[in-house]
Amino acid sequence: MTNINLSDRARNTPPSPIRKLAHLAAKAKKSGIHVYHLNIGQPDIESPREFFEGLRLYQQKVVAYEQSQGNENLCIAWSKYINKTLQIHTAPEQFLITMGASEALVFLFMTCCDPGDEIIIFDPTYANYLGFASIAGVQLVPVLSDMKNNFALPARSEIEKKITNRTRAILVCSPNNPTGTVCSREELRFLFDLCEEHNLFLISDETYREFVYDDHKPLSILHLEPNSKRVIVVDSLSKRFSLCGARIGCLLTCNEEVIAATLKIAQARLAAPTIDQFAAAHMLEHIQEDYLEGVRSEFLLRRNALYDALKEIPDVVIHKPQGAFYTVVQLPVNNAEDFASFLLSQFSYKKTTTFIAPAAGFYMQNSQGIQKARFAYVLNKGDIELAIEALAVGLKQYKGQ
Amino acid sequence: MTNINLSDRARNTPPSPIRKLAHLAAKAKKSGIHVYHLNIGQPDIESPREFFEGLRLYQQKVVAYEQSQGNENLCIAWSKYINKTLQIHTAPEQFLITMGASEALVFLFMTCCDPGDEIIIFDPTYANYLGFASIAGVQLVPVLSDMKNNFALPARSEIEKKITNRTRAILVCSPNNPTGTVCSREELRFLFDLCEEHNLFLISDETYREFVYDDHKPLSILHLEPNSKRVIVVDSLSKRFSLCGARIGCLLTCNEEVIAATLKIAQARLAAPTIDQFAAAHMLEHIQEDYLEGVRSEFLLRRNALYDALKEIPDVVIHKPQGAFYTVVQLPVNNAEDFASFLLSQFSYKKTTTFIAPAAGFYMQNSQGIQKARFAYVLNKGDIELAIEALAVGLKQYKGQ
Repeated sequence: MTNINLSDRARNTPPSPIRKLAHLAAKAKKSGIHVYHLNIGQPDIESPREFFEGLRLYQQKVVAYEQSQGNENLCIAWSKYINKTLQIHTAPEQFLITMGASEALVFLFMTCCDPGDEIIIFDPTYANYLGFASIAGVQLVPVLSDMKNNFALPARSEIEKKITNRTRAILVCSPNNPTGTVCSREELRFLFDLCEEHNLFLISDETYREFVYDDHKPLSILHLEPNSKRVIVVDSLSKRFSLCGARIGCLLTCNEEVIAATLKIAQARLAAPTIDQFAAAHMLEHIQEDYLEGVRSEFLLRRNALYDALKEIPDVVIHKPQGAFYTVVQLPVNNAEDFASFLLSQFSYKKTTTFIAPAAGFYMQNSQGIQKARFAYVLNKGDIELAIEALAVGLKQYKGQ
Repeated sequence: MTNINLSDRARNTPPSPIRKLAHLAAKAKKSGIHVYHLNIGQPDIESPREFFEGLRLYQQKVVAYEQSQGNENLCIAWSKYINKTLQIHTAPEQFLITMGASEALVFLFMTCCDPGDEIIIFDPTYANYLGFASIAGVQLVPVLSDMKNNFALPARSEIEKKITNRTRAILVCSPNNPTGTVCSREELRFLFDLCEEHNLFLISDETYREFVYDDHKPLSILHLEPNSKRVIVVDSLSKRFSLCGARIGCLLTCNEEVIAATLKIAQARLAAPTIDQFAAAHMLEHIQEDYLEGVRSEFLLRRNALYDALKEIPDVVIHKPQGAFYTVVQLPVNNAEDFASFLLSQFSYKKTTTFIAPAAGFYMQNSQGIQKARFAYVLNKGDIELAIEALAVGLKQYKGQ
């Protein structure tokens, strides 16, 4: 028979930089080595007991389709939760429940952009944004946020240079994955004003909103612009409630046109999972106020442990992340991916090793990330210290090769 | 502020024909009218108790991401289940678990086609295929299957007329949604040979595979071509196990390239829901052999009840569907959507009414469906009889207006 070829886009889609070296980690584990996973944003924090209570309360005999816009009680509970924790006003009908923030972003890219249209993002960026853009046929246009400046937003002139007549939106993620940098109120104001001036959507990925440390308080773009039709918030239960596997996110906007149009796209995939939404609604209604405070304190400990340990390694350049649970670190190696592979495939220390995500995959301008790696501080303090100890030993061995 | 506009594709995406009149049904219900839902493929059959058992067995403390390719035990169980029930050989690594058949189709459209490439489908077609095509930027090219011929596959010459140098695949759904027509072994052979000759993928949507009546036995394209790299099966637990809300489907192919490329796209959305996959794996491992036989018998009763009742209404044209739980019916009205709206908004009979899906939305050549409607026989026999009784009375009233 004739060979049948795949599409160019399938061949050209890059593999996830987070999961790229997973096969090496699997091999290491098979040979009896314990792998510290600092490569992936999968916290080891227990999911709230209220979610499991919700699961047990599901008593329907038929696991039927949910509405395309989402479980009504979940929209109500999420709206109430946000109103209470952020002291703002949202209404349930401004929500559309999606399968994780991922699906919300794919939908929004389609709703805001025709194929070939452009969205401005800040480099380094969450690697999967590239996948969503490839699915939606959207061009992401990167503006570099500089490590020397703690990955803060670039200057207005740098952003404006990249705005063309195809630009449709600016996408900001604060607290940021992968850098851990948090936008100030002034920075969000500046972005909004820029969008206003150039008639762009402002898509605010607030997946990590409550994970802020030191003097920061949770900040939403809705604090500044609750009624703007150009503002769309993307939110998720995955990280905040350690529910990555429930696949529940949402988009939130007072722009009814966006909700209505996105709903048409959402109808094609019918609905998000019924039981997970049911359990999530129960959880948001009943969760104790101190759950998140406990999680935040735990991540603060971990952030400090990672920062303190990495600071001790000669020639490692690190900034102190103010939010989320990631940071991008410059390592004293020529190629961080080669070093990450070495750690997994040619090295062990006390029968352990450390899995980090090479940062090149988080940079659209790959070369900017070639000596850097993203660290996710999702393990407990003790494990983080052991992971960095192993990494430091590995670094010496690697450089002594 | 300046108005900000949505993308053309968002504005141009058609609403789901299945859910389009839902707001009228909601209104009718609020006014105390019982609505018989024959518009949507949401069976009222109880989901297997083995699925709920699986739910209760989930004991992890962290609802973590599942692997992008799917829960390993689910792939193993699904492969075993297919091997046993169809007497064929598949291996777990040929599976990629998706959020319903919907996501599998979106992924495949992307993996097989670049934007602007074409896929041949048969008209009428499952309306959401149009949504998937719009998401993937793929052109669906319809070939009419004629009601006079019981919606059987069109002649070779009709299909070949539509094959161009952009054609990448033929997509067949048997048993068919919306017509209930089942392809014979000879028809599947004919399609495969055509794909072979023109170097196309053959995508076989087997969501309803086990729902066949009269002399039919469940038939997969894998019975004919178990080792062809151009064959991709799309499957789903939604209908077979009354698990629409669990959102679990898969694609299945011996083409490793397709699996590897689709996996890269799948990684961008991280994974399908963890708990639903866990429960589904338990269910497929433990389900009793007679579950599906019971479901099939029940749908056979319903098919007969619908067919017998509709046959009695003067000037209604109906063919006897051989599979799935749908049929497309020609009604003695000028515009079936207008009639369906009338039933929901201006009519009731003994405080009930009937919700049917206008068929125009299932035809890419809309005009072919203007006098037709899709009926889903998903209610029990008694309810179907009452639903058609109400419809018959409504038809008289509508025509007497």
